[in-house]
Amino acid sequence: MGQIGGGQGSFIGRIHRMAAGLDGEIELVCGAFSSDPENSKITGAALYLDPRRVYANYVEMIESELDLPADQRMEFVSIVTPNHMHYAPAQMALESGFHVIVDKPLVFSLTEAKSLRKTVEKTGRVLAVTHTYSGYPLVKEARAIVSSGRLGAIRKVYVEYPQGWLSTAVENSGQEQAIWRTDPARSGAGGAIGDIGTHAAHLAEYITGSKLTAINAFLNTFVKGRKLDDDSSMLVKFDNGASGVLFATQVAAGEENNLNIRVYGEGGGLEWRQEEPNTLVLKWLDKPKEILRTGGGYVSEGARNNTRTPAGHPEGYLEAFANIYLAFARAVRDYELGKRIIPEKYDFPGVEDGVRGMAFIDAVIKSAHSTQKWTPLV
Amino acid sequence: MGQIGGGQGSFIGRIHRMAAGLDGEIELVCGAFSSDPENSKITGAALYLDPRRVYANYVEMIESELDLPADQRMEFVSIVTPNHMHYAPAQMALESGFHVIVDKPLVFSLTEAKSLRKTVEKTGRVLAVTHTYSGYPLVKEARAIVSSGRLGAIRKVYVEYPQGWLSTAVENSGQEQAIWRTDPARSGAGGAIGDIGTHAAHLAEYITGSKLTAINAFLNTFVKGRKLDDDSSMLVKFDNGASGVLFATQVAAGEENNLNIRVYGEGGGLEWRQEEPNTLVLKWLDKPKEILRTGGGYVSEGARNNTRTPAGHPEGYLEAFANIYLAFARAVRDYELGKRIIPEKYDFPGVEDGVRGMAFIDAVIKSAHSTQKWTPLV
Amino acid sequence: MGQIGGGQGSFIGRIHRMAAGLDGEIELVCGAFSSDPENSKITGAALYLDPRRVYANYVEMIESELDLPADQRMEFVSIVTPNHMHYAPAQMALESGFHVIVDKPLVFSLTEAKSLRKTVEKTGRVLAVTHTYSGYPLVKEARAIVSSGRLGAIRKVYVEYPQGWLSTAVENSGQEQAIWRTDPARSGAGGAIGDIGTHAAHLAEYITGSKLTAINAFLNTFVKGRKLDDDSSMLVKFDNGASGVLFATQVAAGEENNLNIRVYGEGGGLEWRQEEPNTLVLKWLDKPKEILRTGGGYVSEGARNNTRTPAGHPEGYLEAFANIYLAFARAVRDYELGKRIIPEKYDFPGVEDGVRGMAFIDAVIKSAHSTQKWTPLV
Amino acid sequence: MGQIGGGQGSFIGRIHRMAAGLDGEIELVCGAFSSDPENSKITGAALYLDPRRVYANYVEMIESELDLPADQRMEFVSIVTPNHMHYAPAQMALESGFHVIVDKPLVFSLTEAKSLRKTVEKTGRVLAVTHTYSGYPLVKEARAIVSSGRLGAIRKVYVEYPQGWLSTAVENSGQEQAIWRTDPARSGAGGAIGDIGTHAAHLAEYITGSKLTAINAFLNTFVKGRKLDDDSSMLVKFDNGASGVLFATQVAAGEENNLNIRVYGEGGGLEWRQEEPNTLVLKWLDKPKEILRTGGGYVSEGARNNTRTPAGHPEGYLEAFANIYLAFARAVRDYELGKRIIPEKYDFPGVEDGVRGMAFIDAVIKSAHSTQKWTPLV
Repeated sequence: MGQIGGGQGSFIGRIHRMAAGLDGEIELVCGAFSSDPENSKITGAALYLDPRRVYANYVEMIESELDLPADQRMEFVSIVTPNHMHYAPAQMALESGFHVIVDKPLVFSLTEAKSLRKTVEKTGRVLAVTHTYSGYPLVKEARAIVSSGRLGAIRKVYVEYPQGWLSTAVENSGQEQAIWRTDPARSGAGGAIGDIGTHAAHLAEYITGSKLTAINAFLNTFVKGRKLDDDSSMLVKFDNGASGVLFATQVAAGEENNLNIRVYGEGGGLEWRQEEPNTLVLKWLDKPKEILRTGGGYVSEGARNNTRTPAGHPEGYLEAFANIYLAFARAVRDYELGKRIIPEKYDFPGVEDGVRGMAFIDAVIKSAHSTQKWTPLV
Repeated sequence: MGQIGGGQGSFIGRIHRMAAGLDGEIELVCGAFSSDPENSKITGAALYLDPRRVYANYVEMIESELDLPADQRMEFVSIVTPNHMHYAPAQMALESGFHVIVDKPLVFSLTEAKSLRKTVEKTGRVLAVTHTYSGYPLVKEARAIVSSGRLGAIRKVYVEYPQGWLSTAVENSGQEQAIWRTDPARSGAGGAIGDIGTHAAHLAEYITGSKLTAINAFLNTFVKGRKLDDDSSMLVKFDNGASGVLFATQVAAGEENNLNIRVYGEGGGLEWRQEEPNTLVLKWLDKPKEILRTGGGYVSEGARNNTRTPAGHPEGYLEAFANIYLAFARAVRDYELGKRIIPEKYDFPGVEDGVRGMAFIDAVIKSAHSTQKWTPLV
Repeated sequence: MGQIGGGQGSFIGRIHRMAAGLDGEIELVCGAFSSDPENSKITGAALYLDPRRVYANYVEMIESELDLPADQRMEFVSIVTPNHMHYAPAQMALESGFHVIVDKPLVFSLTEAKSLRKTVEKTGRVLAVTHTYSGYPLVKEARAIVSSGRLGAIRKVYVEYPQGWLSTAVENSGQEQAIWRTDPARSGAGGAIGDIGTHAAHLAEYITGSKLTAINAFLNTFVKGRKLDDDSSMLVKFDNGASGVLFATQVAAGEENNLNIRVYGEGGGLEWRQEEPNTLVLKWLDKPKEILRTGGGYVSEGARNNTRTPAGHPEGYLEAFANIYLAFARAVRDYELGKRIIPEKYDFPGVEDGVRGMAFIDAVIKSAHSTQKWTPLV
Repeated sequence: MGQIGGGQGSFIGRIHRMAAGLDGEIELVCGAFSSDPENSKITGAALYLDPRRVYANYVEMIESELDLPADQRMEFVSIVTPNHMHYAPAQMALESGFHVIVDKPLVFSLTEAKSLRKTVEKTGRVLAVTHTYSGYPLVKEARAIVSSGRLGAIRKVYVEYPQGWLSTAVENSGQEQAIWRTDPARSGAGGAIGDIGTHAAHLAEYITGSKLTAINAFLNTFVKGRKLDDDSSMLVKFDNGASGVLFATQVAAGEENNLNIRVYGEGGGLEWRQEEPNTLVLKWLDKPKEILRTGGGYVSEGARNNTRTPAGHPEGYLEAFANIYLAFARAVRDYELGKRIIPEKYDFPGVEDGVRGMAFIDAVIKSAHSTQKWTPLV
């Protein structure tokens, strides 16, 4: 694996590296860690990389790696730059025959997303988007439970993503994460809806196996001078007849990263909260609630295969993240064996999920500007 | 106190009686417990009432009690009939000089509500509506905290009221509570939004001290053949610039009575859940969350005065209900001493709250039928 | 009902009155509320009692009530004085033909307890001890579950009762509750073990249906100058082969009234916490945990019959307390109909439970003074 | 790093490898993964190791690695065999100049432990014992809070470790983990008390900064035919005057890995539960409880330095485990730079902790066989 982005000062770059390294299946062999070559060099050294494989930029990295013998070069790139810097390296990597794993949202705009999808289709290479939360074992269990029909036909979906860290203008005090996320030139058209709303939308679609079809959204920018939304709430409809509420806000003062979802069907419901991710609550019309736990002997195969420790030994965010990397790595390996890769089979979010994320951002913004109640999401 | 409604088969009638009786300040002296005189008689006997004061209907009750010497007759009536049977007895009681405490929603329609308000104003008698949840000590604490400004200007309000008991067509299997609540002729124009949505709206306004000004609602009737909504969700705006989400549903299978609210200001937030009502969570931008508990030595006067037991001795629904009755009783006593009664001073929901509840139902239904996003609530 | 004790400044007296009054089945008709006749008079007036039935002391009360015609006199006395003042009024009341309900612990010493048991046997009158916590619906459910054998043979019992209110020498600052509880002349030989340890012991025996047989105890007095234990912990054995841990402490700073119990059998376990009393957790070897809730349609008859509100409308301490009063009142009524009363049948704690409580205090103190590990409890 | 043990069928070996690999600071370069050379070979291959460095046994591994040039050989060994196979490889590794990290309990017996301590002292090499739970950020925070004196002098410590997986005779159905743990020849004299009791004891001493001085223990073997204890409970005393309860059981049916601790001082208390490790509750005499969270801006340096993700991105067991490895690796690096290593400074459990663990097992067993209440723990 070669990494693009993730130099000193980056948060998500280190997360990707830990997730990739957890299982001993993936080795970081090169990187272009920063637009600042000095930062890149220092980062590479701290990671014990061969200095010859620490590059000044992604173009140099891809070209140089291509020059190496096939069994020595990196097999895929991990892109962890701000959103506006996803598309170009992803395109070049795919065109050069490398596989790609990219942080969410997929790219900067829906147009870029559709273009990238074409490239994936054309090159046949594997592309994954790190919608991390779908990597949690009990999220997979939730999906399996809905799919099994045990809850009956789904009627209601409530998915929430409150954070509080943008309650004040932290972007004005040098917080690097806040700076680019509140900058339309780097983040894209969505603020909170892009940064975390796309996670919420993906989680809802992943667990229910249904697609969002219509959005009735209200956006706010509470912090003065901020150029993107920092708060969103919306009513939503799904293609299976269900409806619900989705909200994603970064001004819920005192909240950390409280993504959570509740799904109700005709005969029962489920509830999962990311901050206590090893517990999944099932609720029933006529019997006691049930508490499912990561590692429980009763969980389905998908959950079990994504669990590393016995029940009661909590797994967290990095393990969920690592599950995406592992699934991606399995697909890459199978590709090299000549198989055709369908992301669903490996259970990682692929380019189609990425395109839907961008379409979601698009529809939310359209809806927010409309006086009409419902805006379609296609 | 004389009770109208609450005969055998009634749920809320017994609740009102327990709440009224808890503190030894209110005595049930008469009743017209049912439109079925036999039921009324049996109920009265089981309550150890003087058979002469168990009446066949409310007209007879009010007239007969008026015939008693002033120091022997009931002082107020408690109305616990289905919604369509609130208005007439309330009107007659007030006109006859009795005070009134009535279950929510206030009446059958906004028109009736406004008419009743006039009667209250005209007669000067005390009227309370049992928006029970505002009787909880920590709800009062939440209100005090918002009012103190500790959270900063309020930005977001999320109030939810999921229940699951109407997930199936229980009204077809003889469940009396379900039958009248799903019958527009007895319940009024609102289903879930009237039965529980009004509680959610009242709670949000009570805690924030702000008024709902606009509604963007979506209503569903999931159970076939049902004539009223059994599910609602809406985006809402408040007069102080805050916005939020309100949902009230009776088809969230597996939920009991999970009313809950979260309020976020510029510097902090709060969270309260009715099913664990003795805990109030405060969340802060820069310091640990705090857990406030009923009976804690640190709570404000309003919470303390509505608490009966020391911290750790849980109080519940009946105690909250009793707090409404106690505040109403204090007002009645003060009225008899010649004071003019302003419900806010006694901290119980009055006719104005009742009118707002009916206006809320009205606005939600209008919004649900509109293709426009926002419908004003005045 | 006539009350002995419970004047101004008393905590538990008002609790008993609210519990007795909740269901409209019991009426307070007289009282000797305080050793200070003025206090008694004021208390009686505040309770709207006939001044002629507010007495200067319990002797006067019992004698005067006996002088009333049988259908006008009180039927039973409720004794809520400090522990050293339980025995004499209970004896006199029973000998005079009145039934007795008395706060725990039963009396001042094991000797008094055994003597009182004889009087109960001799007079045949009904006596209840308010081990409140056994009145909670889900405690009854827990007992039913153990009794059903669903957990298998019981192996381990952990029962804890941490409070923090005696962490400092509050008895020196005029806190009336603390003063008599830390005074051996009024409280008896046990401090924390008498005040709350007896509740824990009763709860464990009630839920498991087993008896404590041996105690290995360690007592502390952490606050300087205090004359009784304020902290206890002990290993315990049961007559069914189970063993466990019991602790009761009043110096667990920051704890409110955190009585809780866990019971494990061969195939499963249960957990109940008094501070969230409407939830009972079942744990299983091979399947998800289950959450039982007060009012759930699946609970057993004993739990259902002790529940007043639908699921999700929380019940608390006063309702549990009222359940003891209701069961006692049913027994009193049946007695008057000529039946012989066996407390177990009515499911309230009787004189035998009271005697066991005193024997428990006795054994704990013996054990604490012994260098031998185990002291029998008979 | 070279690993001894951890072949196919091992649980803890893979855990160690993931923990070591998480941060990209430690590389697995060789191993003797099993007493079965074939298993070792297969394991090494699956880990992408150079086949020449996959050894048939630890003697071969240590000797062969010593033959490599100093800059190519492993720097330390990770020992993850059953307890009876800790001592010999640890001794040989230390004597050969390698550092050692070893799973708990340190060795098979107190005698071995003391002998190993001598070797550590003699060789000066770094030795760590993986008392994983002290690696959690909020455990470090708890230690810092006690040490700061914020809770006042500590009075009570309750530490519990209930598991349920040995409720039945799983060792008879081929469960490898259960087989050796219930075999005195491989596990040592302690069953539950060795496997998990030592963790509980270490956690209590780590957080309080105090030492256990006396034990009053009761041991059970509930499952027929089992040769070691599967259940323990004990009263304990600490050197600072505090006392408490410790229990560790593997027959608490339905429990997973529910290690938890509560500590109370004169003015406040704290509570931490391993199954939700990102939350630490502080309790106070006179103010609301506080909820501290991993990654919160307010935590102390020790907690912060052991955290990888922002607040709300849960960390778990592997991250805690990795913290032990990281601290050990820092010490190893400093050793190589010529520094003298004191484990406390690096905040990892060292040989002294390991010796205490063995002394704990010893004292508990002595106490369990004694009729005297208290057995000293030195």
